[in-house]
Amino acid sequence: MKVGIIGASGYTGSELLRILAGHRECEVVCATSRRYEGKDVSLVNQNLRGIIDLKFENMTVSEVAKKSDFVFCATPHGTSMDIVPELVKSGVKVVDLSGDFRFNDIATYEKYYDKKHTAHDIKAVYGLPELHRTKIKEAELVANPGCYPTSAILGLAPLVSEDLIDLEKIVVDSKSGISGAGATPKPATHYTMAADSVSAYKVTSHQHMPEIEQELNLLKEGVKVSFVPHIVPVIRGLSSTIHVFLERDVSTDDIHSIYEDFYTGEPFVRVLGAGVIPRMSAVRGTNYADIGSFEVDYDRKRAVIVSVIDNLVKGASGQAVQNMNIMMGFDETEGLKSIGIHP
Amino acid sequence: MKVGIIGASGYTGSELLRILAGHRECEVVCATSRRYEGKDVSLVNQNLRGIIDLKFENMTVSEVAKKSDFVFCATPHGTSMDIVPELVKSGVKVVDLSGDFRFNDIATYEKYYDKKHTAHDIKAVYGLPELHRTKIKEAELVANPGCYPTSAILGLAPLVSEDLIDLEKIVVDSKSGISGAGATPKPATHYTMAADSVSAYKVTSHQHMPEIEQELNLLKEGVKVSFVPHIVPVIRGLSSTIHVFLERDVSTDDIHSIYEDFYTGEPFVRVLGAGVIPRMSAVRGTNYADIGSFEVDYDRKRAVIVSVIDNLVKGASGQAVQNMNIMMGFDETEGLKSIGIHP
Amino acid sequence: MKVGIIGASGYTGSELLRILAGHRECEVVCATSRRYEGKDVSLVNQNLRGIIDLKFENMTVSEVAKKSDFVFCATPHGTSMDIVPELVKSGVKVVDLSGDFRFNDIATYEKYYDKKHTAHDIKAVYGLPELHRTKIKEAELVANPGCYPTSAILGLAPLVSEDLIDLEKIVVDSKSGISGAGATPKPATHYTMAADSVSAYKVTSHQHMPEIEQELNLLKEGVKVSFVPHIVPVIRGLSSTIHVFLERDVSTDDIHSIYEDFYTGEPFVRVLGAGVIPRMSAVRGTNYADIGSFEVDYDRKRAVIVSVIDNLVKGASGQAVQNMNIMMGFDETEGLKSIGIHP
Amino acid sequence: MKVGIIGASGYTGSELLRILAGHRECEVVCATSRRYEGKDVSLVNQNLRGIIDLKFENMTVSEVAKKSDFVFCATPHGTSMDIVPELVKSGVKVVDLSGDFRFNDIATYEKYYDKKHTAHDIKAVYGLPELHRTKIKEAELVANPGCYPTSAILGLAPLVSEDLIDLEKIVVDSKSGISGAGATPKPATHYTMAADSVSAYKVTSHQHMPEIEQELNLLKEGVKVSFVPHIVPVIRGLSSTIHVFLERDVSTDDIHSIYEDFYTGEPFVRVLGAGVIPRMSAVRGTNYADIGSFEVDYDRKRAVIVSVIDNLVKGASGQAVQNMNIMMGFDETEGLKSIGIHP
Repeated sequence: MKVGIIGASGYTGSELLRILAGHRECEVVCATSRRYEGKDVSLVNQNLRGIIDLKFENMTVSEVAKKSDFVFCATPHGTSMDIVPELVKSGVKVVDLSGDFRFNDIATYEKYYDKKHTAHDIKAVYGLPELHRTKIKEAELVANPGCYPTSAILGLAPLVSEDLIDLEKIVVDSKSGISGAGATPKPATHYTMAADSVSAYKVTSHQHMPEIEQELNLLKEGVKVSFVPHIVPVIRGLSSTIHVFLERDVSTDDIHSIYEDFYTGEPFVRVLGAGVIPRMSAVRGTNYADIGSFEVDYDRKRAVIVSVIDNLVKGASGQAVQNMNIMMGFDETEGLKSIGIHP
Repeated sequence: MKVGIIGASGYTGSELLRILAGHRECEVVCATSRRYEGKDVSLVNQNLRGIIDLKFENMTVSEVAKKSDFVFCATPHGTSMDIVPELVKSGVKVVDLSGDFRFNDIATYEKYYDKKHTAHDIKAVYGLPELHRTKIKEAELVANPGCYPTSAILGLAPLVSEDLIDLEKIVVDSKSGISGAGATPKPATHYTMAADSVSAYKVTSHQHMPEIEQELNLLKEGVKVSFVPHIVPVIRGLSSTIHVFLERDVSTDDIHSIYEDFYTGEPFVRVLGAGVIPRMSAVRGTNYADIGSFEVDYDRKRAVIVSVIDNLVKGASGQAVQNMNIMMGFDETEGLKSIGIHP
Repeated sequence: MKVGIIGASGYTGSELLRILAGHRECEVVCATSRRYEGKDVSLVNQNLRGIIDLKFENMTVSEVAKKSDFVFCATPHGTSMDIVPELVKSGVKVVDLSGDFRFNDIATYEKYYDKKHTAHDIKAVYGLPELHRTKIKEAELVANPGCYPTSAILGLAPLVSEDLIDLEKIVVDSKSGISGAGATPKPATHYTMAADSVSAYKVTSHQHMPEIEQELNLLKEGVKVSFVPHIVPVIRGLSSTIHVFLERDVSTDDIHSIYEDFYTGEPFVRVLGAGVIPRMSAVRGTNYADIGSFEVDYDRKRAVIVSVIDNLVKGASGQAVQNMNIMMGFDETEGLKSIGIHP
Repeated sequence: MKVGIIGASGYTGSELLRILAGHRECEVVCATSRRYEGKDVSLVNQNLRGIIDLKFENMTVSEVAKKSDFVFCATPHGTSMDIVPELVKSGVKVVDLSGDFRFNDIATYEKYYDKKHTAHDIKAVYGLPELHRTKIKEAELVANPGCYPTSAILGLAPLVSEDLIDLEKIVVDSKSGISGAGATPKPATHYTMAADSVSAYKVTSHQHMPEIEQELNLLKEGVKVSFVPHIVPVIRGLSSTIHVFLERDVSTDDIHSIYEDFYTGEPFVRVLGAGVIPRMSAVRGTNYADIGSFEVDYDRKRAVIVSVIDNLVKGASGQAVQNMNIMMGFDETEGLKSIGIHP
């Protein structure tokens, strides 16, 4: 199958190129980048030296559509909505990695992204396979989830599905590696500022908060998520510590069982043992979500769940390929079997 | 004034030596360490090379008491209770940096530290100057607060003092630099394990949780703190993100004012502007606590406070010297004026 | 093919397990570890969770030999010489990752390793495929090169083979990631000591210096290598900056051509363009050696070569598997095709 | 004394502000920055919050000259030559931190900095106090040394002064913290690129190479320095490993004695014991240069010296203040006594 990548020179584009280089069912036929037009992909992504023989091109959307059977849009928020409609109309299947098509309610998008949405009529399936696999199979357009939402929703879905917790007082405190901020240098990602420090940001207004709430509300109405993101001195990795207040008496083992049941058969969710806390580095470079702890604190009527992913893989490009596999009827794990490195 | 340090070769001992080297009212006359007996202090703490001319000694408690007017116990939990009683009885004033004398309720200590307390009759003042300055002035023995409690209590005291928040659903999600784990190498602090990763630990059972609750309950009864500590790849620094649920309508500016009022005149608490989020690295090497954000999220009836300190200074040895200054009637900031380094 | 790994719980053992998990020609049938006997491999190496279903065992050498067709000894220097003779005599093929069988001259080993060698009669082939592929094919026992030697020898072999440089004044200044120091926590690898710093060590006495010299002297007699290793705050990766003094007039392009010619057809050596400097992170997790720069400085009659590898892969376990592939007649790149992650 | 800082918002300006805040003989009366005009200094340099009450201003050179008794130019290379002449003519004393006035030979400057020099008639004293203290005392204009040269010259001066080494084959392999690249974000200093990696750069052409040679040639003619700089994942710190070839038989102790003698009485050079290797982190935040190792390798007729500094302090702003102290007759260590932090 011929695959095109639009916006291929950022970190999610770069990860798509890496993953697809090892995918047996498809070949990347074009990778667009205005900035690096004409440059070898492997000069920008030195890990691909000797592995991929491709140049970045500056192509129109219709040229990409013509050359490709399947397209990934790794373009920024606000740009995808200008590109995706033409792709969809031309009949190629698309996974869009931006936030543009993730929301059922356009008003929420416009409030949190602070821009007018110009493609109201295009509908996408939200690409979290663990919740929407059946719909993804039939989809023409999949909106790939954000990194924080992937970690938070996977960490909360089993609990929210039960009548167990105070749905209005869920705290998700997330720590993201710096690659989450993209490939463009900024003061906040300058080594001297980001190293040896931790910073909270957008503590009540991050655009991933309503995305988390939208998906959890599909499972049970009335969920409110108090979400605070942080940047930590890590290259890739994302860890969410989820604090919930219990409304019924349950044990750590009970909660553990709920997760085991919920994720039975899932190829990329590893439910750890009761009381075992996942390490961010154990999923580095892989499409796994590791979920653990489940610890109950009886005195404070609360439980703690920790959910970790690689923000660029399960949090972006790995999940995008997983969605493509489902949409195309390939083995869902194809291209995604590489083992994480330790240490 | 002649000062002795018991247990001087760990990180808190090392910080005491650094701070006291610049203190104009006192001189360190003995620094005990069984491990480094006979070695130059500046060989172990290379930053003190050319600055301190002292050897680690292996001395009895009574020898230290005889040579010193004031003693810092930088000994581990469980060891201090064997040492402090003799010091107190000998008439020297003491700041103890362990957890042994921080608790009003011995049973709580014994539960969370999992050891028998053998010095029930010795009473200490809890050494958080911002809450207990008057009592510290008169104290013979001060129990220096833990690092997480310093950050959490300072970040919560103004809010808890008002009738504003759900006292039973306070979440404190803290991120600590690795020096908080001490100077002894362990698997969890091995560079290859700790770098490029983040780990939650003791998510419902950390011994600093009841310490935070004890102090906040003195301000208002009924406080429960859902505390989760994390280790982050930072040498020194501690940042607490505090999530509270509001029971009354207030604005970010209102909360900011409450903090400004509460900490008026405090030499080491810097209340940042409304909406300004503190950076962990801005307090590196200093005795400051920077507190900020105060942001209100009306939709979720919550507010977020971020409180950062250097875990080894305001979270340990700097605060210990601040306590000594108060106990001895010195200028409270003496020895603590050095400016943090940026970047 | 059935493979055994002796000493499987250190970092090189862990990397062997990771690489062999993706190798289509062999299966790991036993992994010995006294320390972790009975524990799941994937509890110690969390990256292998869900991928490898194996427990660490405490077995005798003869038990391993009986179960295996091929054995990797990932045991420490000084231990391998007690194990390898029995394996070799039992007829299994062996790659030993320690320094014990790398030296043609036992006296050199005994001087630099400061121990008596007790297996003089066992002879091995030095396992650097780029120099000794033909002999490796026939070998029963391969001594896998050290990490620094792999980087230094590959970086110098083409130049030393020509009559071009002052052979007695070659400076190799190497920077190693901290995983090179092994999985056991030590003061020098404690996060707080190793992060945000750089340390030279064993500046005139490192045991890898005579190993580098031995191999280069096979190419041209009279080579002396002034080698200084450093530890840098990097998890994995090893970069050698090689300083040579020129005895003939050559250009950067001339030197570049010498390297291109020398390494033609090599699957794991990537010769970069003239003037292009390799990045340590571009080989992270891979078996590549990237070699570049080649820059000539006419005023100072010198040239600079930079050679980078992943110390645990091409510098240890990846090269060990490459050697096994050659010894067994498998495709030399089998199991070693995984693509490095960027960033 | 009234001090002005031109170009105060970069890292060297920021360090000048930090150091001068603790200097008892002077007060900063103006700090210029076009970029941050009107902003509080402590908003940009959060470590100065509550310590300095000053705003960045956009002023002409003559306005700065009028307000100040002493001026630091922390302006980039090529800019200082437009500013310094007017300052000098107005009669204020100046320390310039750029490379513009460091060279005795304008042609060398123009070659390595690749720009025309427009202020040939202005002569400066090279501000390395350990070599030029007497001239600095009388100077109106001091050209503050570069960071690499400070470390390399201090590490080589004692040896070069003796008839001991091959002067044409000196290798200086230096590793610099990333703050050396300045406060402006760039791809090479983006956290994801700089962390967990090491990169050599400008391996035969760095502008600090001729600066090192100029100063060493004043001690002994014919010195050539083969200099290669590297960027390492460290915020601040610079370590030079110096490789020399011996032309006479000497011992480690002999070399150690040469350094001890050479630096007797120097307040900021700490000569470590024979065989002791300095740690980069031991000088973090301080004006010390730590020099050590001195190890002789008889087989290869070489010796190794390691010289470490904080690139922003002894390598820039600390040395600038040291120069000011000498020029003004203040205690040479005034403002420079703060103790480094460990860990």
